[in-house]
Amino acid sequence: MKLVIAIVQDKDSDQLSNQFIEHDVRATKLASSGSFLRSGNSTFLIGIDDQRVDEVLEIIKHVSKKRRKFITPPVGVDTHVEGVRNNYPRQVSIGGATVFVLDVAQFEQY
Amino acid sequence: MKLVIAIVQDKDSDQLSNQFIEHDVRATKLASSGSFLRSGNSTFLIGIDDQRVDEVLEIIKHVSKKRRKFITPPVGVDTHVEGVRNNYPRQVSIGGATVFVLDVAQFEQY
Amino acid sequence: MKLVIAIVQDKDSDQLSNQFIEHDVRATKLASSGSFLRSGNSTFLIGIDDQRVDEVLEIIKHVSKKRRKFITPPVGVDTHVEGVRNNYPRQVSIGGATVFVLDVAQFEQY
Ligand code: NI
Ligand code: NI
Ligand code: NI
Repeated sequence: MKLVIAIVQDKDSDQLSNQFIEHDVRATKLASSGSFLRSGNSTFLIGIDDQRVDEVLEIIKHVSKKRRKFITPPVGVDTHVEGVRNNYPRQVSIGGATVFVLDVAQFEQY
Repeated sequence: MKLVIAIVQDKDSDQLSNQFIEHDVRATKLASSGSFLRSGNSTFLIGIDDQRVDEVLEIIKHVSKKRRKFITPPVGVDTHVEGVRNNYPRQVSIGGATVFVLDVAQFEQY
Repeated sequence: MKLVIAIVQDKDSDQLSNQFIEHDVRATKLASSGSFLRSGNSTFLIGIDDQRVDEVLEIIKHVSKKRRKFITPPVGVDTHVEGVRNNYPRQVSIGGATVFVLDVAQFEQY
């Protein structure tokens, strides 16, 4: 038995919950904040048999990994810098996950 | 030294806190939600000497274990289904606890 | 790799976050409450290489250790007890930290 502790961005949290349910992985979500990932984040506790750890890590990676996204500044916002129009789409980095896998000495359900 | 992580239903959380205090078990409660247990839940972190782990598990089991309860649907609510009155008391399952016991490599108090 | 779980008083939580950032220690903060420390508290999760555990513990100790503080009861509050004026400065105990260090079986970042 392993305890997986996964810290992901809030914006990936709902999709991750859904994926856990879909894959019959039982997880509990803790409210968290802080500097592992810049914006608001969520911490998941997942209890899982040793042979399913890789599957859980794969789900987390698939949903939450750091990726690039193009955003377009909204029209009407003054995006002229030194006379140059700059409301072109630009790349930002979103997502990211920090994951700890811990050995469980004893596991009980009542 | 062990770290016990216990996830219980919100409705059992106050009584569990009280039992921990009464038995001189020091615990901290994290706000949590999620699919280990269907409705809102609470996650407790309990630091405890190895020889008291069984006592802590017994307290959690005693307060939080899954049990059946009879509920009676309130009068006035339309509980007729296909012409049959069904506001008789009925059984629901409440409670339940998921517990992880982890080895602690180092414990400090400042 | 170690996972450090530190429970500190809310009032020390911002300064601790700042010290972690200043020392390039990545931490996430969970909302918590409970009886490890009487008033509101915060729980930090810190992932750190084995050789930096002592540094992290030193930071936690430095910011959060239990210490005495003099407070003066506000004027206007009735602080007479049995005819004796007692709004002199008095010592209270603040702070305190409970810290668990756990071995990490596997650590991933995505
Ligand atoms: Ni899948
Ligand atoms: Ni008892
Ligand atoms: Ni320093």
